[in-house]
Amino acid sequence: MNIVQKPPATLSPETIAKFRAIVGDKYAVTDEADVHQYVTEERNLFRGTSPLVLRPGSTAEVAAICKLATETRTALVPQGGNTGLVGGQTPYGGEVVISMRRMDRLREIDTESNTMTVEAGMILQNAQNRASEADRLFPLSLGSEGSCTIGGNLSSNAGGTAALAYGVAREMSLGLEVVLADGRILNSLSKLKKDNTGYDLRNLFIGAEGTLGIITAATLKLFPKPRAIETAFVGLKSPDDALKLLAIARDEASGQLTSFELIADIAVDFSVRHGIGVRDPLASKHAWYVLMELSSSRDGISDTLERILERGMEEGIVDDAAIAANLAQRQGFWKLREEISPAQKPEGGSIKHDISVPVAAVPAFIAEANAAVVKLLPGARPVPFGHLGDGNIHYNVTQPVGANTAEFLARWHDVSDVVFEVVLRMHGSISAEHGIGQLKAADLPSVKDPVAIEVMRGLKAMLDPLNIMNPGKVLLPVKS
Amino acid sequence: MNIVQKPPATLSPETIAKFRAIVGDKYAVTDEADVHQYVTEERNLFRGTSPLVLRPGSTAEVAAICKLATETRTALVPQGGNTGLVGGQTPYGGEVVISMRRMDRLREIDTESNTMTVEAGMILQNAQNRASEADRLFPLSLGSEGSCTIGGNLSSNAGGTAALAYGVAREMSLGLEVVLADGRILNSLSKLKKDNTGYDLRNLFIGAEGTLGIITAATLKLFPKPRAIETAFVGLKSPDDALKLLAIARDEASGQLTSFELIADIAVDFSVRHGIGVRDPLASKHAWYVLMELSSSRDGISDTLERILERGMEEGIVDDAAIAANLAQRQGFWKLREEISPAQKPEGGSIKHDISVPVAAVPAFIAEANAAVVKLLPGARPVPFGHLGDGNIHYNVTQPVGANTAEFLARWHDVSDVVFEVVLRMHGSISAEHGIGQLKAADLPSVKDPVAIEVMRGLKAMLDPLNIMNPGKVLLPVKS
Repeated sequence: MNIVQKPPATLSPETIAKFRAIVGDKYAVTDEADVHQYVTEERNLFRGTSPLVLRPGSTAEVAAICKLATETRTALVPQGGNTGLVGGQTPYGGEVVISMRRMDRLREIDTESNTMTVEAGMILQNAQNRASEADRLFPLSLGSEGSCTIGGNLSSNAGGTAALAYGVAREMSLGLEVVLADGRILNSLSKLKKDNTGYDLRNLFIGAEGTLGIITAATLKLFPKPRAIETAFVGLKSPDDALKLLAIARDEASGQLTSFELIADIAVDFSVRHGIGVRDPLASKHAWYVLMELSSSRDGISDTLERILERGMEEGIVDDAAIAANLAQRQGFWKLREEISPAQKPEGGSIKHDISVPVAAVPAFIAEANAAVVKLLPGARPVPFGHLGDGNIHYNVTQPVGANTAEFLARWHDVSDVVFEVVLRMHGSISAEHGIGQLKAADLPSVKDPVAIEVMRGLKAMLDPLNIMNPGKVLLPVKS
Repeated sequence: MNIVQKPPATLSPETIAKFRAIVGDKYAVTDEADVHQYVTEERNLFRGTSPLVLRPGSTAEVAAICKLATETRTALVPQGGNTGLVGGQTPYGGEVVISMRRMDRLREIDTESNTMTVEAGMILQNAQNRASEADRLFPLSLGSEGSCTIGGNLSSNAGGTAALAYGVAREMSLGLEVVLADGRILNSLSKLKKDNTGYDLRNLFIGAEGTLGIITAATLKLFPKPRAIETAFVGLKSPDDALKLLAIARDEASGQLTSFELIADIAVDFSVRHGIGVRDPLASKHAWYVLMELSSSRDGISDTLERILERGMEEGIVDDAAIAANLAQRQGFWKLREEISPAQKPEGGSIKHDISVPVAAVPAFIAEANAAVVKLLPGARPVPFGHLGDGNIHYNVTQPVGANTAEFLARWHDVSDVVFEVVLRMHGSISAEHGIGQLKAADLPSVKDPVAIEVMRGLKAMLDPLNIMNPGKVLLPVKS
């Protein structure tokens, strides 16, 4: 059961030559300047090195790479769009990076079965577009959709803004094709909604962050394209009231409620202040806001939205609300939401968390985390926002006005400790959407059931006995 | 990797005494007459023997049982309501049966988070009722709901009539408590909709039919209770037309389409002929029928249903339709559907299959399977019906009129062979809902990707190295 992380072997020229031969020289990257984009990520938070980046063009090539990696005990780091936020796609140093982006074909779309089979390197937005061209919806939607890939989405079990109605990435996949560490190809591609022939292997690889195998293709669920979308931006007094509004919205709209985003006033302030072209849709200020969206395959949901807001006003929950009158206004509401993340940068250092708690516990979580953070660092500015309907809050903390950014960021772990204490007390998760990767691998044993960790280590040892698949991510090595 | 099925050890009186001491004499069943109900099932298709049936009352007792079973290498068969259709819950001979029915407590219901945590032995109908009392819906619904248990539903990943909108049992569970073969308790109970902290362990045990561990409790998702339900019984010409009507219904109703059942004329005939109080809602006969239901948390879906039927008539798909005007009529439509299974018995022997194919392939599957079966056994009467929206057909074959039942049933495997040949050619599943159990364990290697079988065997060896958890179910022993 002991997973010992081998120090990355220095690849011999012979081994490099063998790897190059699998993909062809054109798709084997060794020049340091070219390698750079694969070993660093956008925010420069995680940096690594790699002697070799391979860009396979087929499942057979990925299988040959894994087989050779097993023979030569070469550590591999699978990578999609390189947009992950926890360092899961970044090598520590010396691993071979497998960039999946060339494998971006649509293998099949079946509008009667409402399924689409795509290769892992297809960019999420392209998958959305392929579905849309067939008059279908592929609902997964997140900030990085222009560059992240389906393989990365599944490996990290991405969430995003549509998870309330459609679930997370895990729930949008019917089957997978996976290359195992030793090069065997597991073919569990399937268009079947019901298949009870043996253990569920698909969900073993979804969310495993490339540590158990490399996802090379997936069959995805498609949905009817919504014909009508109604969006409201609501001002209210508290997360408690937002929770009450959520209950009303679910009661009235049920599955037609497709987004329900909670936003603190400071997040709206930041977005309006720093986001280009962002404006507050409401005339006056409120302590909290909700961005709510209904989608339907037919008309009639403007009535539903109005009824939700009316009930909210009657019950004293909704203080003010704006309904998007056209597509431009709707895009404006979402622009405000999307600019919250970048708008924190001009305000100085930001210590970020991606937590979830039971939906009912969100108000208490925010109150207690705010109190704990401000007690630890007086003047620190909590910026909570996120997917209330999923209990998922991006609990960010911006530095005090005028503070030294480096000194503030040096307190990252202290701040996380007090936030995670509240999360764990409420039976929440320290990583709702983003995964464990490098960033939280050391935290995992202290937040997870010890038997769960033992079973995870058993799975890792069974599927990757040499620990060559993205070593040191999710599970840290155990001293044997 | 080799799983060798040990011949069931004869339990020594000392070992039996130790097992009895865990649950107390009152809950240890050894009298043959009392054991009988646990080692046979309703249809008497699967029969076994057991020296001891244990009825634990707590997770701690289940853990102690598994620990002792590991120490004494005693094979265990976990059992819920004993309603499974593939012999998964029946001992072969000599295993100790663990009946979970006493563990039937509601641990918690949280209407804000829309979750409910129940013990594995809670009967499905009771779980539905607990949710309903809290003004929520637990949507899992199947024929045996009055006696099957949540633990059995999850272990077999049950489907049922609401899977179209709400998914199968797997998709209704957020977290599990599981006792592993060696007695360790895995606590993955969780109310979280998003939690990306490590590998997904829940789905490993859901659908594993008790071969990897014993599910002792589960956190289940709750949904808003529908306020309006509209049901139609439709006559049409072909499965192709039914598929077109499904597309219209999904287009108009989207997530509000909660059932879409396809029924062959012969199934309606049988149900009307043999079902007490069953009548055909339509004035004249049709080759095929659809039972369609829409559910909504608000009014307005009668318009939607009418629009679906209007479009169907305009396009020449719908020949006739009846809409339930009241609850009694709705119950009458469903009664017709539910009586299809029992109504086959008075017609003689019935060879049953529970298959799925991609939704688009259902019409071709039915046509080709019918042709193959009738070619094999002239006069045999195919009775296809099932969940068209899930691609899941209960493909039953009734004996020719006047044939010898025993002789007909002796051809079960021959009939299955020709049916499965069509299923596999269409990339379908030989077990959509019911699982593998004893019935299909020998078939599994020939219908499943060989690498998938290898990974399944690896999982089994990792979690149950002594092969004491429901041995010989799902995976047959390999000669070492």
